[in-house]
Amino acid sequence: MRAVVVSGLAVAQPGWGVDAASQLNQKEAKMNSRLFTFLGGDVGQWKIVGSKNIVGDSLPAARKLNIVSGAVTALPDGARWLLRGITSNERYVTRPEKEQLVSRQPGLGRPEADCAALIPIRKNAQWWALTQDERRKVFEEQSRHTATGLKYLPAVARRLHHCRDLGESEPFDFLTWFEFARADSAAFDRLLIELRATPEWAFVEREVEIRLIRDAA
Amino acid sequence: MRAVVVSGLAVAQPGWGVDAASQLNQKEAKMNSRLFTFLGGDVGQWKIVGSKNIVGDSLPAARKLNIVSGAVTALPDGARWLLRGITSNERYVTRPEKEQLVSRQPGLGRPEADCAALIPIRKNAQWWALTQDERRKVFEEQSRHTATGLKYLPAVARRLHHCRDLGESEPFDFLTWFEFARADSAAFDRLLIELRATPEWAFVEREVEIRLIRDAA
Repeated sequence: MRAVVVSGLAVAQPGWGVDAASQLNQKEAKMNSRLFTFLGGDVGQWKIVGSKNIVGDSLPAARKLNIVSGAVTALPDGARWLLRGITSNERYVTRPEKEQLVSRQPGLGRPEADCAALIPIRKNAQWWALTQDERRKVFEEQSRHTATGLKYLPAVARRLHHCRDLGESEPFDFLTWFEFARADSAAFDRLLIELRATPEWAFVEREVEIRLIRDAA
Repeated sequence: MRAVVVSGLAVAQPGWGVDAASQLNQKEAKMNSRLFTFLGGDVGQWKIVGSKNIVGDSLPAARKLNIVSGAVTALPDGARWLLRGITSNERYVTRPEKEQLVSRQPGLGRPEADCAALIPIRKNAQWWALTQDERRKVFEEQSRHTATGLKYLPAVARRLHHCRDLGESEPFDFLTWFEFARADSAAFDRLLIELRATPEWAFVEREVEIRLIRDAA
């Protein structure tokens, strides 16, 4: 047995008998990674200024958040928790909605956006037993998820990470990362209140809200 | 640094500071695993009787297929390739379609179903750039994917495994596993011909068809 790390990075390594063209694709995939790891601990680009468990269990307290592109194969000293997710295709938006989003959504890393939120969410078994048309109906026709999000553009930048299909035992289904300027904090609070009041949120069985500011140190 | 395997099994281990309730969920998740590993090599419950690359690169030749529930953390001696995927919620079916599927689809492992096929597929970037409504339109309204599959029930049992969001460098997006009796082999061949003639298949950039019989030895 050759010991290998079975992570997103290690399937079909050189020497596993997979052809050269495929290995090239592996290499390209690593360079354009969709996987992000969020580490709560003593180091990181972002200072944690608050953590609330909205529903279900909380996460252990940590001082800083370190966002790493790609997989982390060892838990650094001082890290209290590790969450990871992968960016993917959107599951609910229609073409007209997508076009509105694309035309209005800002990128991450704006210098003025020194506030952030990491919101890990898990939905319940009832949600995942719904069919696609039923989930879409709750998500948009009943809850106006995309329409509500659009109202807060371009103030709030957002990146959604999927965890549910990353492995069999991820603690959350989604990690949503938001960035906004301090002046838009109150607007961001309203966005959360609006979304949490919708029928979609009846399917949320675990939600933690971690608020952060860019670490000047 | 404590070295840990970052796989579906290892996020939020005891000692990582994640609460006890969450650890219990991890344990439950391991017992009801959605993750399956397919190993092509010298051992396994299924004998490989043919392997065709339909489009794109082939897989290395192997004699047997071993299907393992859960993650494999070391590549066994003699294994030529490893593919893995996770069962997940359906992405396209409506409630009426789902009800028809549920009422007619057989389970895996029927004693009379001694033939099988493993069909790994990757769809191209154009497919993944489509919005949900556009993908549904190609999948069902144009290609009748579910309706065609329904015609071959209950002869053909099927389990779909998703790989695309498992990690950043999986060689395929889906692994579909089929089981059927020898008497239904010709019907299964027709199912493949029907599906491959549809508009949906214009988005398939890699497809391998591996045919198997249950290994008596």
